[in-house]
Amino acid sequence: MTAFAFDVEATDGRARAGRLRTAHGEIETPVFMPVGTAGTVKAMLPASVKATGASIILGNTYHLMLRPGAERVAALGGLHRFMNWPGPILTDSGGFQVMSLAGLRKLDEEGVTFASHIDGQRVKLTPESSTEIQDLLDATITMAFDECTEYPAPHEKAAESMRLSMRWAERSRNAFRNREGYGQFGIVQGSTFEDLRRESAEALTGIGFEGYAIGGLAVGEGQDEMFRTLDFTAPMLPEAHPRYLMGVGKPDDLVGSVQRGVDMFDCVAPTRSGRNGQAFTRRGTVNIRNARHKDDPRPLDDECGCPACTDYSRAYLHHLVKAKEILASMLLSWHNLHYYQSLMRGMRTAIRSGGLDNFAAAFRAEQAAGDIPPI
Amino acid sequence: MTAFAFDVEATDGRARAGRLRTAHGEIETPVFMPVGTAGTVKAMLPASVKATGASIILGNTYHLMLRPGAERVAALGGLHRFMNWPGPILTDSGGFQVMSLAGLRKLDEEGVTFASHIDGQRVKLTPESSTEIQDLLDATITMAFDECTEYPAPHEKAAESMRLSMRWAERSRNAFRNREGYGQFGIVQGSTFEDLRRESAEALTGIGFEGYAIGGLAVGEGQDEMFRTLDFTAPMLPEAHPRYLMGVGKPDDLVGSVQRGVDMFDCVAPTRSGRNGQAFTRRGTVNIRNARHKDDPRPLDDECGCPACTDYSRAYLHHLVKAKEILASMLLSWHNLHYYQSLMRGMRTAIRSGGLDNFAAAFRAEQAAGDIPPI
Repeated sequence: MTAFAFDVEATDGRARAGRLRTAHGEIETPVFMPVGTAGTVKAMLPASVKATGASIILGNTYHLMLRPGAERVAALGGLHRFMNWPGPILTDSGGFQVMSLAGLRKLDEEGVTFASHIDGQRVKLTPESSTEIQDLLDATITMAFDECTEYPAPHEKAAESMRLSMRWAERSRNAFRNREGYGQFGIVQGSTFEDLRRESAEALTGIGFEGYAIGGLAVGEGQDEMFRTLDFTAPMLPEAHPRYLMGVGKPDDLVGSVQRGVDMFDCVAPTRSGRNGQAFTRRGTVNIRNARHKDDPRPLDDECGCPACTDYSRAYLHHLVKAKEILASMLLSWHNLHYYQSLMRGMRTAIRSGGLDNFAAAFRAEQAAGDIPPI
Repeated sequence: MTAFAFDVEATDGRARAGRLRTAHGEIETPVFMPVGTAGTVKAMLPASVKATGASIILGNTYHLMLRPGAERVAALGGLHRFMNWPGPILTDSGGFQVMSLAGLRKLDEEGVTFASHIDGQRVKLTPESSTEIQDLLDATITMAFDECTEYPAPHEKAAESMRLSMRWAERSRNAFRNREGYGQFGIVQGSTFEDLRRESAEALTGIGFEGYAIGGLAVGEGQDEMFRTLDFTAPMLPEAHPRYLMGVGKPDDLVGSVQRGVDMFDCVAPTRSGRNGQAFTRRGTVNIRNARHKDDPRPLDDECGCPACTDYSRAYLHHLVKAKEILASMLLSWHNLHYYQSLMRGMRTAIRSGGLDNFAAAFRAEQAAGDIPPI
């Protein structure tokens, strides 16, 4: 068995290029984790996810506990086997989805009681049960159960919420059954307040986790405020452990956050946008539903190596989206994940050669140039 | 360029094993053609369609003429290039869909005027325009424009409808621009009446086509009546040309029809059923949505080599269907197409060794045995 180990192999400013070793495989960081909400990265076969360059995916505890159920997944050999993804899987704690999806929530010191969005069933999630569920799912990386502080929150409310999350972090750690090659991450809260983020980071490092996540961002504060918060939060986290910015983000969020010292990301944007006809490209976002693509024989991006770009015209992709064909979701999800992974690979390479700032400047210039002109 | 040529290489009773050579590749018969309605075999990448063993697919003139439009497809290099399927494509004439999908139809000697099911636009389809559209699409095999006689139809009405189709067949043939490796099929009508089928077959062979289709079946007459009609219709068709039974069918329809001398089939069943959670297997139809599969760690079919069967449990497929995940449609469509192609391959092999009746008996016994018992 491989020990769960993280090595920072190169730095460039605050950015780090590293390697995370786990029971289910190695991950080069900075890394983007595609989201496999309900045991599938939507509209993708696992082999295709792998082909985009993904080395780790995320699973949602909230969705999986409600359907098909964590005990069922465990009985079927765990999430890796269930969904045919033998590589590393990080599961969130369920806390965020309870807040965004479930009905009739009641939060107390013990945990959160809520009504399932599927059948209204009353369910309770606590630091202990969340941790146990992630264990049943066989998560390579388990997340501590926390409350994602809403934005904006006054200092007092953010402090109270963060301190509850810190008590829950300790209970999550106590409930965690460590195994060789597995790890658990604590989650820093404290909204956009530097003193609260510091208090939270110190509480978590006092407990001791294999990695540290930054939660409570990408919740409406905007990119400037997110970067400002990252500027003071990232340096509070131990250098020898991976730093994971939860739920982020768009391509330029990823670049700016890597420059600020973040190692790991997850976001539904590439797959969700793909299902909505939106493509992320070197030259910014392309809405393939737009009539300008109707007769365009050119690929989405002539430098991209994904099937959507190598095998099809914009006109065809436009047609698929208009005709509501499943293949539209398949191809655009694939393209977007491929683009995200290429971007991360580019940053990893740039960090190792000390050229991240140049890479970022070129990235921003190309994004700003915008899409190729219509034919 | 390859000439369009058909060779019957083996017979077994009335069944034939042959080889059809076209400008876009070779087809071993009996063959099942997956349906790629709007320029995509739904929920499948072309490489996956190919991987199931498919050598030719079908495209729908009605759908493609309305969206994205035949001229547009032509300007983009034809349907093969547009949808990234370099192999042979057969297009139907549009007549059947005009009857089943369009609104406000008006049929006269000239053709059919109808309202598009997409935007209500008035469109006219005639033998000449249908043939020209199929030419613009670059169909390897063009179908003559016909009226699919409704079922049941009294003899007089069936005769009238069939004779209109025969006049249209002649006009279709006159409008057909033949090119090396391309072909056009006429369509025998006449409902379930032997005299009308004979009159129709004679009219078509008098005109002369590269192949002959049997239309007006699988429209509600039931399998017994369909087989009875095939029993007298197939022998009316020239032995040296391929025989195509349009819109058929379920696995046992295919087996019975191959035994009656049919060479080619198309049907939406494998893909449509796949999107509805239904799997065709050696042991009959399995409804994977059924709760009996919830905890079943076994594959759908342990002898099947498709990704749905080699990489996943019934429990996982059940979960995907319940969660309405796109991957459910992807995997079950793949499985069903794989099963159909395996069945056709089995029949081709059996015919060549003179064992089709044994193959059919074993097929029927296995189907009748039904699904494996629940765990």
